Amino acid sequence: MREAFQEQLDSIFSDLAEICHEVETSVRHATQALLDGDAEVAEQVIAADAKIDVARERVEDTAFSLLSLQQPVAGDLRVVVSALRMVTELERMGDLSVHVAKIARLRVPEVAVPDEAQPTIARMGEVAEDMVRRVAAVITDRDVDAAIEIGRDDEEMDQLRRGSFTQLLGDDWQYGVESAVDIALLGRYYERIADHAVSVANRVIFVVTGQFPVATESA
Amino acid sequence: MREAFQEQLDSIFSDLAEICHEVETSVRHATQALLDGDAEVAEQVIAADAKIDVARERVEDTAFSLLSLQQPVAGDLRVVVSALRMVTELERMGDLSVHVAKIARLRVPEVAVPDEAQPTIARMGEVAEDMVRRVAAVITDRDVDAAIEIGRDDEEMDQLRRGSFTQLLGDDWQYGVESAVDIALLGRYYERIADHAVSVANRVIFVVTGQFPVATESA
Repeated sequence: MREAFQEQLDSIFSDLAEICHEVETSVRHATQALLDGDAEVAEQVIAADAKIDVARERVEDTAFSLLSLQQPVAGDLRVVVSALRMVTELERMGDLSVHVAKIARLRVPEVAVPDEAQPTIARMGEVAEDMVRRVAAVITDRDVDAAIEIGRDDEEMDQLRRGSFTQLLGDDWQYGVESAVDIALLGRYYERIADHAVSVANRVIFVVTGQFPVATESA
Repeated sequence: MREAFQEQLDSIFSDLAEICHEVETSVRHATQALLDGDAEVAEQVIAADAKIDVARERVEDTAFSLLSLQQPVAGDLRVVVSALRMVTELERMGDLSVHVAKIARLRVPEVAVPDEAQPTIARMGEVAEDMVRRVAAVITDRDVDAAIEIGRDDEEMDQLRRGSFTQLLGDDWQYGVESAVDIALLGRYYERIADHAVSVANRVIFVVTGQFPVATESA
């Protein structure tokens, strides 16, 4: 019984890591579509989201079957429920990449992000992508130290977002309201991707240690 | 056993309805703080959020105890997991109200929303508050027809958001970049509150009927 439980749980975590890799690709492509004004790459991100949704359903089905057939209690129960929550968050990160891609597509043949704002948005995209890549490794390796590191990266994202606001609300901003609104929303989307990455990493810490690193969160 | 299960489940749903009422108050106060530029009311929303977080933890504890002690399977299991998801969404709606309140507070002694944009934002606040109020009733009464109605209201929110973009990206917009960015983000927050309201209502439909009204969602 215990062995069957562990096998199914491993299969869930391997699916979660796979979904996380797909989200990483979506984040990378969304940023590329945005900075290059590339409608084709934007469409790829939008189309790929259906695949993430299907993979999410598979994880949910496996988790429910595990809960029904193995009836785990205490720690094991919380691990399975954590996995259900992780897959919801990963799917949401995919949705947020789609939002980024849709802003890219909306402005084609223009580029949504003016030259002056490109470095900050490009860095937001890099930080988000890097966080998602490392979350996938954290899920695969159940590496608590690496999971804690991801929380620290979130601080750079917050700084980037503050910097971005300073830029677009400054007197030097010459790109009008539309670009400012695009960039404010893009900043919000990248920030939320980063938030979810931290949350998923925290859930891995919980799965391994039985403790959340943040007092306000629970499984 | 079955009776104990039903009793604990009823207690969870009664807590969910209570949290939903607290979220309704937060949405109402956040909108009021925003339209009046009232820092005190904004602070109330921010302070009240801790109460929602505590209530969320209580629901989670009860749900885990139910899963561990009663070991529900099949439909019952999905109902409890749905409740766990509903409480996460309700908490998130509270967080979004805090985001609205923080924009209000940031602009005091000014009012974040200029006169011309007040009707649209006021209506967004009303629609969101009304949706949350009706979700609380749906949770209490397990009323499927009322839950379906909430999905239809979401369409008005989407229209309001599109109307808001048209306004702030139009040539007549005279309130600068800062107001436009505030309003774009506010629109996003209200839209997300409405999305979560629909999602919670859909989960009630699932709890009652065993079926989701939307093909892409699952418990």
